[in-house]
This record gives sequence, structure tokens and C-alpha cells, in this order.
Amino acid sequence: MSSAVIAEHAAEPVPAEPHLAEPYMARTLAVLGLSVEYVRAEGDTLYHRDEQGAERAVLDLVGAFGATILGHNDPDVVAHAKAILDARLPVYAQFSLHPYADTVARKLNGILTRELGEAEPYFAVFANSGAEANEIALKHAELDRVTRLAELCGALHENRENARAALVEGTAVLADDAFAVLGVDVHDADHLLKAAELANAESLSAPPVLLALEGSFHGKLVGSVQLTHNPSFRLPFSSLAAQCRFVPADRPEALARIVEGERRTVFDFTLDAGVVGVVERDMPVFCAFVLEPIQGEAGINVLTEETARHIQQVCAAVGCPIVIDEVQSGMGRSGSFFASAGIGLRGDYYTLAKSLGGGVAKAAVTLVRASCYRQDFDLIHSSTYAKDGFSTRIAEKVIDLLETDGGAAYRLATARGEALMTELRAVQAEFPDVVKEVRGKGLMVGLEFHDQSVAAAPALREKADMFGYFAAGYLMRAHAIRIFPTASAVHTLRFEPSVRLTDAAIARTGAALRDLCGVLRAQDAARLLGL
Amino acid sequence: MSSAVIAEHAAEPVPAEPHLAEPYMARTLAVLGLSVEYVRAEGDTLYHRDEQGAERAVLDLVGAFGATILGHNDPDVVAHAKAILDARLPVYAQFSLHPYADTVARKLNGILTRELGEAEPYFAVFANSGAEANEIALKHAELDRVTRLAELCGALHENRENARAALVEGTAVLADDAFAVLGVDVHDADHLLKAAELANAESLSAPPVLLALEGSFHGKLVGSVQLTHNPSFRLPFSSLAAQCRFVPADRPEALARIVEGERRTVFDFTLDAGVVGVVERDMPVFCAFVLEPIQGEAGINVLTEETARHIQQVCAAVGCPIVIDEVQSGMGRSGSFFASAGIGLRGDYYTLAKSLGGGVAKAAVTLVRASCYRQDFDLIHSSTYAKDGFSTRIAEKVIDLLETDGGAAYRLATARGEALMTELRAVQAEFPDVVKEVRGKGLMVGLEFHDQSVAAAPALREKADMFGYFAAGYLMRAHAIRIFPTASAVHTLRFEPSVRLTDAAIARTGAALRDLCGVLRAQDAARLLGL
Repeated sequence: MSSAVIAEHAAEPVPAEPHLAEPYMARTLAVLGLSVEYVRAEGDTLYHRDEQGAERAVLDLVGAFGATILGHNDPDVVAHAKAILDARLPVYAQFSLHPYADTVARKLNGILTRELGEAEPYFAVFANSGAEANEIALKHAELDRVTRLAELCGALHENRENARAALVEGTAVLADDAFAVLGVDVHDADHLLKAAELANAESLSAPPVLLALEGSFHGKLVGSVQLTHNPSFRLPFSSLAAQCRFVPADRPEALARIVEGERRTVFDFTLDAGVVGVVERDMPVFCAFVLEPIQGEAGINVLTEETARHIQQVCAAVGCPIVIDEVQSGMGRSGSFFASAGIGLRGDYYTLAKSLGGGVAKAAVTLVRASCYRQDFDLIHSSTYAKDGFSTRIAEKVIDLLETDGGAAYRLATARGEALMTELRAVQAEFPDVVKEVRGKGLMVGLEFHDQSVAAAPALREKADMFGYFAAGYLMRAHAIRIFPTASAVHTLRFEPSVRLTDAAIARTGAALRDLCGVLRAQDAARLLGL
Repeated sequence: MSSAVIAEHAAEPVPAEPHLAEPYMARTLAVLGLSVEYVRAEGDTLYHRDEQGAERAVLDLVGAFGATILGHNDPDVVAHAKAILDARLPVYAQFSLHPYADTVARKLNGILTRELGEAEPYFAVFANSGAEANEIALKHAELDRVTRLAELCGALHENRENARAALVEGTAVLADDAFAVLGVDVHDADHLLKAAELANAESLSAPPVLLALEGSFHGKLVGSVQLTHNPSFRLPFSSLAAQCRFVPADRPEALARIVEGERRTVFDFTLDAGVVGVVERDMPVFCAFVLEPIQGEAGINVLTEETARHIQQVCAAVGCPIVIDEVQSGMGRSGSFFASAGIGLRGDYYTLAKSLGGGVAKAAVTLVRASCYRQDFDLIHSSTYAKDGFSTRIAEKVIDLLETDGGAAYRLATARGEALMTELRAVQAEFPDVVKEVRGKGLMVGLEFHDQSVAAAPALREKADMFGYFAAGYLMRAHAIRIFPTASAVHTLRFEPSVRLTDAAIARTGAALRDLCGVLRAQDAARLLGL
């Protein structure tokens, strides 16, 4: 969202009882007609009170940005939460055994094996939010990288000193191409050894290379916000953390070029049969490639199998670990527990959050491929709130509920998503001049409008950078439907309802969108903007 | 903790059913005799099952590293949590009104006014952990800094161009000292203007300066871990985020020197009465000074009033915002809601978490002085899980419980803390050869043993870098008391029980410590280490 709307209203008088929690957000909501306080929530319905104090039901298609795959206050989840509290189970007992955390990890491993054919176990590190889970992946990948780097440094030093000793003792001679490999003109062994050391020192001090896709959203903490592509979220904080290279998802050849440009090599000495040779080796400069199988914030973009395969190949070639951010796409929303399963994408890390907390708790976890796992990480990293007895047990319950009846929830996600998409595509067919595209997978669906910055009505053109929010305000006012655009693609509405989405709700959504499309076709700015 | 213990046991055979959640932690716990699964928790008691399946009560002095000021599963907090669930209140309804979040902010503002005399309001931004709250403070401080920097850049440019125009038009002359201020030898106006521009460009591109105290602990996310002093937590990740300057808390003069060394100035042009002058101005290079009023991880160090005053003065002089991390010390533990109140320390930011969640939820908040607040922050920063209806309402309840009866909980924290310290000091008096110091405030207490790296028994000397953990293992095995050392000062045991701590529990603690001290006086390594 641009800050223009806020700036516009910042001059308004401050109310007598000003908002103290994110004070300017409240004004923005007021401008958009979204100043609603919800007092009750069940399934896909949120309730607020009207001016007479009566409850008014709102159909919620936001689904807490993907955190309520089972709906708001799912009865089984709520009952489980209450049972945890009733049993007075320990919530925070750090530095003791947490077998329920192991259970969650084991269940997730079973799903990884089933959906992605992963034979190797993944270890689990728990967190408190999706952003934290991504930062744990980042920290672990960096620990792994600097550990490999330190090992490489040691080996380079040893090989160089062995070569030096052999040359000094006269038990070996330099290979013919030794000087050429390093590109040095002075044909002197000491000079060669020194030149290799200096060149290596420069390479080894290079900052880690972080890669992410354009349009990516991986959180807004100090480190993770630098992996989030939207410049207005990221740029003000770029001095606080390592920078990321963003790769266009639709141009796979760009990835190969970027990776080639970022590769770094060091010079190593070999000693074989009385000959000292110089070889150039890759060094671990790539920390991680972080990506979403289905981009959420960017406007619902499903990664293609072809792109996934290409990323996998390029990363494997340079030893760059892949972090798959399933915070939004995971937990069944795509029709399988892991959206990566749908495109054959395999990661060294998987991060989960949002719906893992069942819409009640703050559950998050980072899965790390066992063969990559650095055992020190268990003691280097920690969090008071993470791996707690409440959210972890809720996560276990959520996994059980999703897996019930052979994964009925995943089949529901596919079926309800298809029903929703069918309705949205019918709207598009009726209003091709208004709706540009309907896309998505399962219950992660986007409906993109044509760009309103070239709209006929001047008022719509002016507000185009906030278009989706005004559309949201209209659907709320006129149809009691709650939906938002994706923050980084404001012409796309994001649908992330629960697996309980009814046919009636879909029909109501279709009717409301037809009305909205009619308003847009008529370019009735006053009606849309509520003027 | 060193990784030596882990490395030592990494060679052990992996069990048939390996731990998948933080797999190496379990082995470490086993080595230390801390492999306990707690199955129930109430007040200051955690229960686990013995080999016969009977419940065994353990006195918990860890208090979830400060997260359970009201004890485990406080009945009022649990009842409130259940009531929230029963009422089907919305937990995640982002981008709508959250009046309960305002209520929390308003109550915290009332306490700030009462305890610290703050007349100005503080705005609240909610988070999911203490580390997140600190990163929000950091992000906001940086947004404020880069915004001021951009304003300064604009003003410098304008003033320089005005000066240039006046000189070209001949309506002004250069001040006599203009060249000397900039230190340029070539006495030419164009050259002077260019030199100022270049010098400014270099200064303005300087990275932000972050300051923290030695021994500090501010979290372990990518950004916050760089504010955490312990090198084993911080150094592996130093390429991922901005570096911090650490200031020794006991040498206030060092702060002034460090700040003086980090100050940066730019050259500005003045135009007054036909004279163009050059002046040197401070630029906003300081992002934040982050500190705990009582350091936890460092071994329980209470900041002195004198140091607080000094920090305040130095920061005010250079316009460096102060972030007070009350994540562990806050919520009443020190005898007032904010530990800063006890030493007269005032911040531009306060961060809260741990006990704010009542030992059940993951609640965290960052308070930002209203006059510093950047309204864009509301829309630039966000979190799916933050400001949720569950943890925020729990936080409200916790504040109410602490404030009940004129803050009876704070008086209890003082009284129970004094009773505990009296007992610990009696132990110290009996074993001055074993116990070096007892220190702390309220229910944040440390007991430091003499350094065991110079112990008489070789086995104790060898294990000295893990001493506190072995002491913890002994107290658990022999006395069913749960306590840990502070991670960055392993000879100091950290006591953070709840305000419900009984006289009997204190007496039991004293008896157990006397036994432990006897073992140490006798240098009975076999008994201490459980060999």
C-alpha cells in the first residue's frame, strides 16, 4: 500500500480518545470503509455489531492471510486448546524433554516422505511466527556455510603448506600450468603461493549470497524483510541486514546468469607424484535460495514445474541450499500438505506457520534436512516462547485433523478451490473488460482486475494504487464480504477461505463480484469509493 | 554453553527412535541429568513421572526464563484463556479494528506515566516474541533515522544550491573561514561546493551505528542476535546483519569515547546578510542504544542509576534513541512494572514479552514514544500472528492481575525477592569459599559461585565451562529443584520464580544449596557430576 492515503488523512484532527495501537492504521481503515470490530468468529464467518448492536455476519474470504485452513475457531481445535489448559500441561518448560514436539516433527516427516518421496529425515526447530521460521532457516544455512568455509580455509592452508614444504625440500616440482592457472607473470614459487593466499583471502571474505524470487514475501523481521521483494517494505531497512539478489521467476535463464556472476572460487594446491598443481575450486558463497511454491503477497503466482526444476538444477550445481517457504501455501491449502509436492520442488529446508497454529495459536517450525543439520545449532539458537506446550500441541492436532480420513481436508481444498475458481472464471467470462485473470491452486486463489490506472473515470485513475482496498471496502459495505488485495499487487484480490467454504458462500461471492464488475464497467467511481 | 559437551556425545549411537525436534539437545539434557518430561505445571511446581509412573513434584526456580511471573497455569489466566475460546472471539482478523489492543496500550501508558512520569503517550506495535519486539524497535528506529537522513539530504542540497546561486549572481560573498572549515586549500567557490558535496556523500552513506551493553541479550533472530553480546550466539551470523558496538556497562567513560568516535558530521551552507558560510552539523548516524535495565543472560546485573544517567546524557547529546528491553525485567519482576523505573531510566522505546503472555500465550509489544512515531510504520510493518485476539487479551488480563489491589503483585515481587535473597545470602555467609556473590532485584536474582576452572578437583576444572549446568543436574537429581545458570555466565544460577514463591520453597532452596555447597567445598566431583 502506498503511504499517500495515510498522508492524505494525517492532517485530520486526532480524535479525543486516540488509537494507541498502530494509530494510523485505524484512520486508513476508516477511509476505506473497513473500520469494523469483529466480536465473534466461526468457520468462514466473522461477526460485528451494527449501530443497533445486532450481530451482522460477514463472509470472510481473507482467512487470516492463510492462517485458518480449518476456519475460525474450529470446534476440534478449540476443544483441544481447552483440554490443554484444563490438564494444566506445562506451556513453557525450556531445556526439558518435549516429546510432543518430536511427535509433530515425526508426523511432518511422514508427510514429506509420502508427498515428496523424501527418504531422509528432517530435523525440526520451532519458532513463533513464519518470519521467525524463515530466519531460523537463514541462520542455519549461514551456520552451515561458515562452517564449510572454515573447513575449506583449513584445507587450503594445509595443502598450501604441504606444497610449499615439498617445493622447498625439492621432493616436488611445480606443474607446467601452475602460473597460468593463477594468472601470475612472475615465475617464482614463493610468489605463486603468496598470490594464491591473497586471491583466496579476498574471495573468502565475500559476503554471503542470498537469493529469492521477485515478488517474494518471506516476512518482515530485520533479516527476513530483506528477502521480501516489495521495496516499500524492504528498502528503509536495507542498512540493517544482508542484501538479497532477486531473480525473475518467469525468466529461468536469468537465474543461471545471476548465479554464474555470484560464484566465487579459491586456488588450491595439489601434490601428486612429485608434482605440485594449482586448481580452482568453488567456495561456499551461496547461503540460500528462499522461495514460495505459490507466491501469496505477489498476487497468487503458482511456480511452474519447469521453473522449479530449473531452480533445483542451478542450485544443486553450485551447492546452494533451497529454503521452501510453505508458511502460506502449506498445511493443505494447495490440495496437498506441501504445495511443493504439486510441482516436484524439494528443499533442504521447509518453513511452516500460519494454519499450523489452527487459527488459535502461534505455531511455526523450520524443517532442516538431517544431512545438512549442524548439531551446534540446538544450543546456539533458542527462543523462550518456541516449542511451547500450547502451540506445539495445537500444531499436532491440526496435522491430525488434516490427515484424518486419508487426507480428506486436502481433497476438500482441491474441490472447494475448483468450485470457487469455476465461479470466478464465470464472472471473468461475463466481464472480460473488467477481470483480467483468475489463477491459483486449491484454496489459494487470485482474481486480477484490469489496471485501473488507465481507467476512464478520473477518480478511479487517481486511486489506482489503492484500488484493491477500495474494492474491498465496497464488497464489505454492499455485500458484507471481507476480502483484501495482495499487498504487492493491489489489483489482485486474494481468496484464502477455509476447507469448509460452502456452495452458498461461493454463489454469494459470485453475485457480489458481478455487482462490483458492473460498477467498474460503468466506471461508477462514486459508488465504488463510497463518496 | 560450549559445544564441547555435545561434540563429546555426538559419537554416541543414535537411538532407534531418534529425536527429530532439536535432536542434539536431548542428548545434552541426558548428559546433564536433565532428561525430564514435565506433564503438569501449577504455580512454581512442575511435575514429571518417575519410573513407576507416579507424579514427582519439582520446585521450578527457572520460571520459564522470566515468562511466568504469576506462576505456571495461573488459574485466572487459564480461566480467561478458556473464556476467550468459549466466546469464539476472533483470534486472527487482521486489518480490522482491535480495540483490546488499544486497551493494552492505554493500560501500559498509564503505568509509564505512574512509574516513570511519562507525560507523552507511547504508541504500541504488537509482536510474537521478545526478539520480534526488539526487532520492531530496531526497524522503527532505523525508519526514523533514514527519514531524518533523507530530510537532511534535501536541506543540504537546497542550502548548497542557494549558496551557489547567490555566489554566481554576486549577491553574496564567501565567509572568511569557509575554506578553513572544510579544510580545502584551493580557494575557489566551485571547488568548495564540490568538496562539501563529496565529503557529505561519504558521511551520509555510513552504516547505522547500533549500540548495546556488553553482556546484553536481546534475542536470537537475524537482526537481534547481533545485539546479543555472547560471541558463540552472535559471531556465526555476523555476515547476515548490521554489527553492533558493545559498551562496557561498568566504564561509563568508554561510552562517551565510543560515541565520539562514531559521530559523523556533514557540511552545510548558510546564507545570511550577503555572506555564504560553511557550518559542520551532526548527522543522524546513531540508530539506537538497546539495553536491559537488569541484564538476565549476562548473570543478573542491575544497571546502576549512575550508569543509566550517563547513558541518558550521552544519547541525548547525540540524538541517539534509547530502546529499553524489558522483555525479562518487566511485568513486575523487579518490584515495579518497568525495571527502568527503579533506576530512573527513560526510553524512546520499551519492549515487553515473556510474562506479558501470562505463561500461556505468546504476547509481545513494542512501545514507541509518540513524538518519534513514523506513521508510515503502521503500513510498512505487519505480522499475521501479531495483535491477535488471544494473546493480546491475555496480556490485558495479566496487566489487570498485576495492577490489582494497588499493584500487590509488585509488592510481592519485592518481598518474595528479599526473602529469597536473604536465604541465599545466608548460604553465602556459610560458604564464602564456594559462593562469590548474591545479587539482583525483586524476583530476578543471581547466585554466583567461585570460578571452578581453578577448582582443586581436576574433573571440576575440566567441566568448568559447563559448571552451572552440572550444578543444575545435581539440584534436580538430589533435591528435585529446577534451576539453570545464565547462558553467558555459567557460574551464576538465575532465580526467576513467581510472586507465589512460598517460605517453604525458599527454605527448601536454601537447604539444597547448602548441600550443593558442601559437595563443592569437599570437591566431590563424582557426586556433583553424578558419575
